Amino acid sequence: MSANEASSSATIVTAAILVIGDEILSGRTKDKNIGYIADYLTAIGIDLSEVRIVPDVTEEIVAALNALRARYTYVFTTGGIGPTHDDITADAVAAAFGVTIDHDPRAVAMLSERFSPAELNEARMRMARIPAGAELIANAISKAPGFHLGNVYVMAGVPAIMQAMLDVVGPTLRTGRKMLSDTIRAGLREGDIGGPLAAIAQAHPAVSIGSYPFWSDTGPDTNIVVRSRDAEKLTAAMAAVKAMVASEKQ
Amino acid sequence: MSANEASSSATIVTAAILVIGDEILSGRTKDKNIGYIADYLTAIGIDLSEVRIVPDVTEEIVAALNALRARYTYVFTTGGIGPTHDDITADAVAAAFGVTIDHDPRAVAMLSERFSPAELNEARMRMARIPAGAELIANAISKAPGFHLGNVYVMAGVPAIMQAMLDVVGPTLRTGRKMLSDTIRAGLREGDIGGPLAAIAQAHPAVSIGSYPFWSDTGPDTNIVVRSRDAEKLTAAMAAVKAMVASEKQ
Repeated sequence: MSANEASSSATIVTAAILVIGDEILSGRTKDKNIGYIADYLTAIGIDLSEVRIVPDVTEEIVAALNALRARYTYVFTTGGIGPTHDDITADAVAAAFGVTIDHDPRAVAMLSERFSPAELNEARMRMARIPAGAELIANAISKAPGFHLGNVYVMAGVPAIMQAMLDVVGPTLRTGRKMLSDTIRAGLREGDIGGPLAAIAQAHPAVSIGSYPFWSDTGPDTNIVVRSRDAEKLTAAMAAVKAMVASEKQ
Repeated sequence: MSANEASSSATIVTAAILVIGDEILSGRTKDKNIGYIADYLTAIGIDLSEVRIVPDVTEEIVAALNALRARYTYVFTTGGIGPTHDDITADAVAAAFGVTIDHDPRAVAMLSERFSPAELNEARMRMARIPAGAELIANAISKAPGFHLGNVYVMAGVPAIMQAMLDVVGPTLRTGRKMLSDTIRAGLREGDIGGPLAAIAQAHPAVSIGSYPFWSDTGPDTNIVVRSRDAEKLTAAMAAVKAMVASEKQ
C-alpha cells in the first residue's frame, strides 16, 4: 500500500470471494461468478482483495470463511445453498460463527410463494435453514433466499441467481473511494518499455501501473493500465506514460 | 474424506492453483486458466483441492505460497513472470523458499533464441531471474521460461503460454488413481429428488454424489454426477441413482 493509500485508508473498503464447490475444482463447471463480482465491486468502489475456491467440505469452508471474514470488510460466498445433501454452505457458515441453524419462518414463507405444501419436502426445506441472527437476501428468480450474517454474504452458485442477489445486496454495502483507472494501448512490445515504465512507477508511488501484453493483428502490443483513487495523481502518471510511449515510438 | 479414500491415500495426489494478478481481482481480465488447469489435472489423476487469487503484493504471494505448498502435493502459479516492474512472482517464490535469485544462464540462453543482444535490455532480463535451485519450464511460444522449485510450478498468465508450459510439465508429474465420474440427466427437479439422493449418498460413502440444477428447454432439470476412484463402487452407486430416478418419474 502506498503512502497515499494509507492516508486515505478510512475510505478503502475491501472484499473477498469464497467459491464453494467440488464442480469448479473438478473442472466440470467453469466459474462465471468471480469475474462478474470483481467487475461489480470495482464499479461501486469496493476492492476485491482475495478469492478462494474450496471443496464441499465443512472444515475447509469454515477455515476459509474465518480467515477471510477477519481480514476483509466483506466476504461473498457463492454455491452450496440448494436442496441436496451436498449443499452445506449454510451449516458451515453457522459453524464458522458458532451460532445455531434452523428453519427460518421468513425463508419458509419465501419458499411457499413458489412451492405448494406437498412440494415443500424435507429436501426443499433445507433451503430454509438459516443461521441464527442472519438477514435474508431475496431471490427474485427461484425464491430460495441467500442471507448475510455479520460481514459474510451467502449467495447462490447459479450465475443468474447470484447476479439477482448481488443486485439486492449491492445498494446496502458500504463503499469506498472508487478506484479510477485509465488505459493506453502502447503499440509497443512490453519488453521495450519495461525500463522506463518502472521509472514512472517509482516516480508515482500513489498510483498502480499494470502492464498487459497481448497479440494484435499487427504483432505484439501492450496495454498499460494506470490506477489510483486520486484523479489528479492518475492524470499526472498517465501523462508521464503517454510521453514515454511517444518517445519510445520515435 | 471417506473411509475408502483414506485407505488408498497413498495413491491420492493433490494440487492447488495460485493465480497472481491485480487485473483478475479488478475484473479487467477474466481468468481462463483455472478451469483449464482443473480439467487437465482431473484428466491425469491429480485432485485440484484449492484455488487462491491474490494481488501483485509480495507478502500476499509469499503467505499464500507457503500455506499451499505445505499442504498439497503440487502448487501451480499463473501470472507475474513478464518483463515489467509489476512482475514479481519469481522474487516472491525465492522469498517464500528463502533462496537467492539471480539471472540464470540457462534462461538467458533461452531468451537469446528470440531477442538480439540489443533487445535483451534490463526489462527483458527480468524474465531470466530464476530462484536458486529451480528447474526451468520451456516456453515454446515466447521463450521466456517458467520454472519449478520444490513442489511449486511457476507458469505464465497468458493462457496460450500457460497451456504450452502445462504440456511440458504434465508428463513429469506424479499422478494418483484417477477420479472416475458418471453423469445422469435426471429429467427431474432437484428439490424432488433431494431426499432419496441423500439416502443413496449415505448408503454409498465411498462415492461422492453431486447434484447440479439447470434450466433446459422443457423446464427445470438436474444433472447428477457420481464420482469415485473405485469403478465398482461408482457403478453400484450410479445404478442406485438410476433406479431412484426411474422410480421418481413414475
